[in-house]
Amino acid sequence: MINLAEKWLIGVDLGGTTTKLAFINYYGEILYKWEIPTDNTEEGKNITTNIAKAIDRKLEELDLTKDKIIGIGMGAPGPVNLATGVVYNTVNLGWKDNYPLKDLLEVETSLPVIINNDANCAALGEMWKGAGNGAKDLVCVTLGTGVGGGVIANGDIVQGTSGAAGEIGHITSLASGGAPCNCGKIGCLETIASATGIVRQAFDRLQMGTTGDLAGLYNEKGHITAKDVFDTARAGDETSLLVISETALHLGVALANIANTLNPEKIVLGGGVSKAGDILLKPVVENFGKFAFSRVKESTVIDIATLGNDAGVIGAAWLAKNK
Amino acid sequence: MINLAEKWLIGVDLGGTTTKLAFINYYGEILYKWEIPTDNTEEGKNITTNIAKAIDRKLEELDLTKDKIIGIGMGAPGPVNLATGVVYNTVNLGWKDNYPLKDLLEVETSLPVIINNDANCAALGEMWKGAGNGAKDLVCVTLGTGVGGGVIANGDIVQGTSGAAGEIGHITSLASGGAPCNCGKIGCLETIASATGIVRQAFDRLQMGTTGDLAGLYNEKGHITAKDVFDTARAGDETSLLVISETALHLGVALANIANTLNPEKIVLGGGVSKAGDILLKPVVENFGKFAFSRVKESTVIDIATLGNDAGVIGAAWLAKNK
Repeated sequence: MINLAEKWLIGVDLGGTTTKLAFINYYGEILYKWEIPTDNTEEGKNITTNIAKAIDRKLEELDLTKDKIIGIGMGAPGPVNLATGVVYNTVNLGWKDNYPLKDLLEVETSLPVIINNDANCAALGEMWKGAGNGAKDLVCVTLGTGVGGGVIANGDIVQGTSGAAGEIGHITSLASGGAPCNCGKIGCLETIASATGIVRQAFDRLQMGTTGDLAGLYNEKGHITAKDVFDTARAGDETSLLVISETALHLGVALANIANTLNPEKIVLGGGVSKAGDILLKPVVENFGKFAFSRVKESTVIDIATLGNDAGVIGAAWLAKNK
Repeated sequence: MINLAEKWLIGVDLGGTTTKLAFINYYGEILYKWEIPTDNTEEGKNITTNIAKAIDRKLEELDLTKDKIIGIGMGAPGPVNLATGVVYNTVNLGWKDNYPLKDLLEVETSLPVIINNDANCAALGEMWKGAGNGAKDLVCVTLGTGVGGGVIANGDIVQGTSGAAGEIGHITSLASGGAPCNCGKIGCLETIASATGIVRQAFDRLQMGTTGDLAGLYNEKGHITAKDVFDTARAGDETSLLVISETALHLGVALANIANTLNPEKIVLGGGVSKAGDILLKPVVENFGKFAFSRVKESTVIDIATLGNDAGVIGAAWLAKNK
């Protein structure tokens, strides 16, 4: 008899520069985790081979065979067709459009593979083992270089009809007068609430000739980071406080509008920007309260992600366990 | 042996002034439908009794017994706890908060009952037999006196953690400078895209001393309706065209943002305002295209509801069939 509980899952989080791998038990606990560089040369043709080799080497190292493994779950940086495991729009990996990632990785590893979008995997990870704490209605928003999202309703990921659900970074915050976004639209949340967006706003204000700590840092270093904005705001810099106030307003409105639509148990904020802590979270929660429908405000909680970089591999393993 | 396919479902759509009832077969086809007035006197204590009596009388009339019926599905005008069938906030029916609607109706009818919010039932109806055409990811937006919504993901209604998912009318369209909403917030979509919101905007413009067909109608009748705004816009009235342009902008942004989050196969617009046709739909679709993420724009379609007032009873019957 096969005892599933003694078998392992493999979680893979495929990024543009590194690929994270983990062996994870049936209860979502990470047993081994490691990273390999992502080789996106030659139209990305080595990516799946390198993952297969990395898994084989680790199994050998542990003196185990593939019988130990139930399957591989993998998060990819782009919209995914969950049924076919085909990945769209992954220019930064070198792949051509509609790349049959699942099929290729199955051939290379002789293991069953399930693919999903990386932001969706992070959301599933937080649902299973992180801030979601088992919540069956959960929205994860990753505030990093860009803004990503994953939506879970009734305990399952919402993929959307073409795999593009969770594009929370491209919610329009400013219908007119906004900054251009990489996606081709104007005024997206990502142009305001990402690390890049925070720096852009600060830079726009500095260009207007403002003075203070942030201006001093900029004159000294020749550039500024989102962390500089948060650090100087904590010391009372007026420019930085205005940037944070604007960011918190638009993020609060966007999260409230998501919650008015979905009334999730939790909205989990992850990514580098979420590490700013109370200086950002407090005004975001205040604005959320102002713009959420009363019953939604009383029941939907905003929280900070707890799994950090592990969310992706854990959520990918959840897929391998459940799908 | 029980042949489920030969059994019937009862759909009930409970409104503030009338209650719609229907006997519906296993395939969602309405066999008999009728209405009774909703008696909200005496704290609404006669409502469930009247529904039970109406069902008994109709069965008698058809010379049938309750064996023919699988169960009752019912849409109620307020947030609902799906598990317990308790209804919250239904002041206009006379009920106190946390009214045990399911339990009371089961006692009165001796049939199994399932309750959901009326907007959710309308969404399920459109999914099953209407414009949704079986789409498993579907958002319904009802543009009536107010603005209501129902969200379906992965083939099931999204209830939210406290039954308040789908409060699309309370998405904030104007974070500052908006009109007050009945819900206590400011600048909700409902203050712009409902029939009431359209009249309010037109009235605000007329107060500024604009002239034209709409102003003429107002001077003649002493009041105007949303239909007046659409009718005069079709004849080129400038005030009315500006009101529609503003309405279509905010509705387009809100629908695009919902679609950026959920990427549904269809967004179905229902309610009286949706009957305005192309004069509203065309600019809404244009704005949607402008504010939706490219992949979402290519895959999410905006459509007009087809079931009209029958959506609620059909969706309620779907619940009785499937839950």
